[in-house]
Amino acid sequence: MENPEHGTPGVYSAKGKAFERDSRYITTRIMAEPREGTDDYPVEPGRYRLIAAMACPWANRSIIVRELLGLEDVISLGKPGPTHDQDSWTFDLDEDGVDPVLRIPRLKDAYEKRFPGYPRGITVPAIVEIATGEVVTNDFAQITEDFFFQWREHHKPDAPNLWPDDLREEMETVMERVYTEVNNGVYRCGFAGSQEAYDEAYDRLWTAMDWLEERLGERRYLMGDAITEADVRLFTTLARFDAVYHGHFKCNRQKLSEMPNLWGYARDLFQTPGFGNNTDFEQIKAHYYVVHTDLNPLSIVPKGPDLENWHTPHGRG
Amino acid sequence: MENPEHGTPGVYSAKGKAFERDSRYITTRIMAEPREGTDDYPVEPGRYRLIAAMACPWANRSIIVRELLGLEDVISLGKPGPTHDQDSWTFDLDEDGVDPVLRIPRLKDAYEKRFPGYPRGITVPAIVEIATGEVVTNDFAQITEDFFFQWREHHKPDAPNLWPDDLREEMETVMERVYTEVNNGVYRCGFAGSQEAYDEAYDRLWTAMDWLEERLGERRYLMGDAITEADVRLFTTLARFDAVYHGHFKCNRQKLSEMPNLWGYARDLFQTPGFGNNTDFEQIKAHYYVVHTDLNPLSIVPKGPDLENWHTPHGRG
Repeated sequence: MENPEHGTPGVYSAKGKAFERDSRYITTRIMAEPREGTDDYPVEPGRYRLIAAMACPWANRSIIVRELLGLEDVISLGKPGPTHDQDSWTFDLDEDGVDPVLRIPRLKDAYEKRFPGYPRGITVPAIVEIATGEVVTNDFAQITEDFFFQWREHHKPDAPNLWPDDLREEMETVMERVYTEVNNGVYRCGFAGSQEAYDEAYDRLWTAMDWLEERLGERRYLMGDAITEADVRLFTTLARFDAVYHGHFKCNRQKLSEMPNLWGYARDLFQTPGFGNNTDFEQIKAHYYVVHTDLNPLSIVPKGPDLENWHTPHGRG
Repeated sequence: MENPEHGTPGVYSAKGKAFERDSRYITTRIMAEPREGTDDYPVEPGRYRLIAAMACPWANRSIIVRELLGLEDVISLGKPGPTHDQDSWTFDLDEDGVDPVLRIPRLKDAYEKRFPGYPRGITVPAIVEIATGEVVTNDFAQITEDFFFQWREHHKPDAPNLWPDDLREEMETVMERVYTEVNNGVYRCGFAGSQEAYDEAYDRLWTAMDWLEERLGERRYLMGDAITEADVRLFTTLARFDAVYHGHFKCNRQKLSEMPNLWGYARDLFQTPGFGNNTDFEQIKAHYYVVHTDLNPLSIVPKGPDLENWHTPHGRG
């Protein structure tokens, strides 16, 4: 996700107010069995391209899930660079600045192709139909859920069960709290437009961090002894915590590395194939510190923190 | 110290350039034996008032040394608040917003009284002659040195020897490196006006921090087994490190609390009378985050970090 939220280039914070995310996405889905009378697209290997920036935590989820499930040969991946212009993610890391498959310089082109004059943020992750160049969906939570349930036929043989039936109800509760309090909670701190809004956001975030710290003292992963979608969703926020949120978003009661259970848990995931190899700290730092000029006017990117610690033994499991 | 360095209200960073501190101060001194043909003032109990903001590291030194030497009854202390207007520290914490002894709302008034049209920054610490209301000096390094050598007759009986003769030469070398690389080094990071200037400043700072970490592995204090002026000068920067410099100035390779020797040393001093009781984290945070609107446009003050750790056992000595 991540586009200027308040209509002014470079302005992400909500001056004088609390931050509220615009959560209206394109709700089209890609289904194993498209439903009549809907705008569903069919599951079909090679038909779609996932556009996901390494920098963005919401996009990063889809990159990780794609690899955990072994969908790399079925759904290709295009990666916009860490910074973007005022209204679109751009393919500035690619040769000639265009995505090599879609042949467009800006993700906005795929949104406009399907919805001329598309009025909302040009966000990642987005799935684009390659033949038409039209965006299909940018509904980040639905994308990873559908990777699991709709693309099952194309998963690798030993793909993990990211959505175990018997845990589904508890998982939804946990994921909802992680989303509102942590995934979005760090943004609520960083984009707070007043001291009062920030103070309240900080307390909400750390109440949730303490809850997670306690929960992970009793379980290796969020839902028990196996990795689920809930872990992916928490991980991409934790991976950005010390590198960005601690300083840039003022989420600074402690560093993640000062929360023993959360820190062991985060490294445990980081060192699991699919997670750490899809975490690019340089792009993550470049994105936040360069793009949010309202928070960091000179766009200087900190050299720290030392992130070698992610490779240290986690002592879990 | 600390006033807008580049002529524009709220602008402290040096856009496009490296930060350079204006180090031209009022060089008048207060001497036990005033020298003929100079503008020396005489040492005299009750004649002067030290104006020093708790927030400012350079001013904080003078507050600490005054107490270590037992000069509280001889030189009174006025404290400007943590924030200030665009060209002067102000007495906004005092009743009616005026210093109760000098009866002025802004420190600038004492500078103007002696030097109408004073062209440089209105900095703390400053010493003001109470009867005339005129500033005597703002030369921060000379002020603490003179507190020791010139006010000796008025020290308390057990005052520490902050300037031992036999260590003087080595002390000057250490203090010079601490000043250029650490005391001023953190500002060089924070006020860097370009990525290149920042990157260079960061490397210089951490080279010095590593040198100190090693040095303090071999000595309880900077110069050996007793506290000297060199410790006071380093302490006021360390006390601000995790609270401000780590995030606000992007001095974030590690937190101070992640440097074992420096962290033990800093707490050792903090827990020594004169140091911790003259450290006001709330004012420190309010100052930097509110005043430097070029770095932190919304002036939101982080609630973190948790600073209770300053009271934990330091395990030294």
